[in-house]
Amino acid sequence: MSMTNTLILLRHGQSEWNQKNLFTGWVDVRLTDQGRAEAKRGGELLAEAGLLPDVLHTSLLSRAIQTAHLALDSADRLWVPVRRSWRLNERHYGALQGLDKAETLEKYGEEQFMEWRRSFDTPPPALDDASEWSQADDPRYADIDGERPRTECLADVIDRMLPYWEQSILPDLNAGKTVLVTAHGNSLRALVKHLDGISDTDIAGVNIPTGMPLIYNINADGTPNGAGRYLDPEAAAAGAAAVAAQGKGA
Amino acid sequence: MSMTNTLILLRHGQSEWNQKNLFTGWVDVRLTDQGRAEAKRGGELLAEAGLLPDVLHTSLLSRAIQTAHLALDSADRLWVPVRRSWRLNERHYGALQGLDKAETLEKYGEEQFMEWRRSFDTPPPALDDASEWSQADDPRYADIDGERPRTECLADVIDRMLPYWEQSILPDLNAGKTVLVTAHGNSLRALVKHLDGISDTDIAGVNIPTGMPLIYNINADGTPNGAGRYLDPEAAAAGAAAVAAQGKGA
Repeated sequence: MSMTNTLILLRHGQSEWNQKNLFTGWVDVRLTDQGRAEAKRGGELLAEAGLLPDVLHTSLLSRAIQTAHLALDSADRLWVPVRRSWRLNERHYGALQGLDKAETLEKYGEEQFMEWRRSFDTPPPALDDASEWSQADDPRYADIDGERPRTECLADVIDRMLPYWEQSILPDLNAGKTVLVTAHGNSLRALVKHLDGISDTDIAGVNIPTGMPLIYNINADGTPNGAGRYLDPEAAAAGAAAVAAQGKGA
Repeated sequence: MSMTNTLILLRHGQSEWNQKNLFTGWVDVRLTDQGRAEAKRGGELLAEAGLLPDVLHTSLLSRAIQTAHLALDSADRLWVPVRRSWRLNERHYGALQGLDKAETLEKYGEEQFMEWRRSFDTPPPALDDASEWSQADDPRYADIDGERPRTECLADVIDRMLPYWEQSILPDLNAGKTVLVTAHGNSLRALVKHLDGISDTDIAGVNIPTGMPLIYNINADGTPNGAGRYLDPEAAAAGAAAVAAQGKGA
């Protein structure tokens, strides 16, 4: 039997801006009732599978923190230690933050829209610090060394997420802990790309459903032992399809 | 102007067993709807007063963790770092855990009842490890050095709480942080006794209301600069009177 430790990835449930079909990024919106129900269900799935987190890692965004709280409540593990980092935040969506996805698609056309959503290395235009959707003055980011992001592509997310994976999450796994990471569509795509060795091109087609625990067995060197698996594969496939359809009037 | 830092003490709101009038101690019950509303209101009071926590300390009990989550949500500070310790837990109520307070009062008489509730240095009988209300097998307490408590008096709570105050909470205050501590009637009484220099006798008459932020300005040496103050003094007085009346059929 190989020595692996259990990593649980959980994307937050539906947020107020998912519901309104707005680009969110670092804007700190809360979960909807549906999102809260998804998070609770995620925790029930963990409890049913006997996968009980020993430690929690979250982003600094409320929707991921709410998701963790509700899932851990369902799994009766509210008391586990918590670590947080901006490095697990959603991709900063730049000047798109606060814009309607369908209107943006109509205004700029599908090619530009899909480039902004899925380009590996081309970020949207930077968000002005004076925007009401800017995080330039947000005290939660006081610890960021250097400049705060004003926009990011997926490559940028990988660059700032991977040091946290290596320096904070992997040491917890190697201490024998079952680790829950509650985060976002793009910070989790960045981690999945790294774990599964997905190419810069193919990652554009990978969508992570909300509220569905995604389980990896991680070797001591940080590589996965086998593929990741969703605890509820049928619901996960339907959820991923729904994410892929966003902005298309769904 | 003296250099002080802000300490916020918050006792959890009504729990399921507060509502049922049962001795709770380390039994991990959740908040009632009323308790959740109290916690939210506590966070609103903090926000209205401009007292925004930079860091959270909680016990390992879910009702304190829920209280923190709801209060921080109200104050828009869900993202602050979290530290937890069993040293902030409620007093372990020994063999009384799970018993009805009114029935216990009737069965043992007021003298014995009040000694168990308010004696400084006489704990109730120890809880048997085989009891359904024992924490002997609870994984959250794996880190406790030595024996886990099976009963505690207030003097025991002070002995295990003070090292955490000195080694974990005070350093956060001295780093200039506004510190929120969400905990329990007796762990907070233990801290208030220490801060205010209350005698072993007089502490029996001190009751801390639920869901009411209690604010201290703390000097660098850990002493308070002046008395603690409740953000809503009238409501706090009524709440303290309600706590004092527990077990008496109220």
